[in-house]
Amino acid sequence: MGFFHEGHLALLRAARSAADTVVVSHFVNPLQFNDPADLDRYPRDFDRDLALAREEGVDVVFAPGVEEVYPEGSVTRVGVPGLADSMEGLRRPGHFEGVATVVAKLFAGLQPERAHFGRKDAQQLALIRRMATDLRFPIEIVSHPTVRESDGLALSSRNVFLSPEDRVTALGISTGLFAAADLAERGERDAGVLASAVRSASPGIDFEYVTLATQDGAAALDRLDRPAFLAVAAVVGAVRLIDNVMLDASGSVDRGRRLDSASVIYERR
Amino acid sequence: MGFFHEGHLALLRAARSAADTVVVSHFVNPLQFNDPADLDRYPRDFDRDLALAREEGVDVVFAPGVEEVYPEGSVTRVGVPGLADSMEGLRRPGHFEGVATVVAKLFAGLQPERAHFGRKDAQQLALIRRMATDLRFPIEIVSHPTVRESDGLALSSRNVFLSPEDRVTALGISTGLFAAADLAERGERDAGVLASAVRSASPGIDFEYVTLATQDGAAALDRLDRPAFLAVAAVVGAVRLIDNVMLDASGSVDRGRRLDSASVIYERR
Repeated sequence: MGFFHEGHLALLRAARSAADTVVVSHFVNPLQFNDPADLDRYPRDFDRDLALAREEGVDVVFAPGVEEVYPEGSVTRVGVPGLADSMEGLRRPGHFEGVATVVAKLFAGLQPERAHFGRKDAQQLALIRRMATDLRFPIEIVSHPTVRESDGLALSSRNVFLSPEDRVTALGISTGLFAAADLAERGERDAGVLASAVRSASPGIDFEYVTLATQDGAAALDRLDRPAFLAVAAVVGAVRLIDNVMLDASGSVDRGRRLDSASVIYERR
Repeated sequence: MGFFHEGHLALLRAARSAADTVVVSHFVNPLQFNDPADLDRYPRDFDRDLALAREEGVDVVFAPGVEEVYPEGSVTRVGVPGLADSMEGLRRPGHFEGVATVVAKLFAGLQPERAHFGRKDAQQLALIRRMATDLRFPIEIVSHPTVRESDGLALSSRNVFLSPEDRVTALGISTGLFAAADLAERGERDAGVLASAVRSASPGIDFEYVTLATQDGAAALDRLDRPAFLAVAAVVGAVRLIDNVMLDASGSVDRGRRLDSASVIYERR
């Protein structure tokens, strides 16, 4: 959706090292915004994104207009029921139908051999994997670790809207997830205990949900007995943020990786 | 769906003359059958179909198993609301979601440059065109005239289930449509008058619907003022049959084409 940060740039680098031709899609998809105000204010800076893509050696920035993605009379929708009914799907009606539809269009129209997605949108990742498998696209879906600010906050284009005070508060989200990840590393397998650990370590955050779910189906789990992610959403100030850590039954944890310095989203280019 | 008749063979011939490689899909799609009994008894004869495909010079008969088209856990569905809500969609709940989903899988997985469909399934044709355009498949959809027995009955794999008496009754369907087509050729543009002409010329048939609809959107029309089809469905004996004639505002009519002798569906091979 543009307004690239280091999470996006990591995807571009991975694609560049793996493919002869790298295309990055750049499209703020109206169909996946349940809130028109959120769509209106979504950060946009095409020239900045173009410069960043060029620095990463991208061959094509595919930045279609809305009428190209949704031609006149367009009505076809792709749905992935079951994976879209919890967590983000429950709080953002229509969001995942919008995601599945636009990604199906990108896969159908561009026919990529490989597509790269970040793990920060863990439910979206599960849904896109399911959709690509179900519709039999001959494509490899590659996922990459969440990229974080040096203090732990997950990168998001929306972070530019956090006030300095909210920026401090927002850090509680990753602090809570890391506290639960520590417990999982020490052997805790109970989803309720892991969720409580998140909430206890982040008293300043009013979470919309704290859910342990399967990596492949985004289905809620009572126990950490298979590859899973512990996902949260919370509104901080005027910004709705999501984050997760990836966990599995062996106790290994993927917290993502941290930058050494502040993200490019704070730079004027 | 197999059990090929001359309508299918005409598609294979057209594909053969236009492409280097011709693939025919051969799959009785459970997702598009709203009636399990209809699915159970749908005529099947793979060896016969294979021989017919070979005679037409087809390169590949793609005959996947159900588990290949719908892998374990498969949930993704493709919907084309608006085009699926009337006529066949209204009488066969879920039918067109099944059609759109399986055709999207064939397009996504096989990546054909061109796909050939018959005009007998006029609403399906409109829906597939819309789906392919909306999802941005780089594909050309080519349609071909309905093929009929020498007396006018539209070919259908299901015709083998008509008793001799029902076979006589069923002829009323095309007789009715041709009567309306005659009127359209003579200048009639009112949908109600055209529909009445169908019913008057086929007193023995209890039509489920007689509908004039747009060729591109399958939307009901009051007047024949653009490319349209006049579509009907009726149960004759134990068989549900559909048929249509294609009409336009200039008065030109596509009734399909007739065979000289009985269809191959009646031959034992």
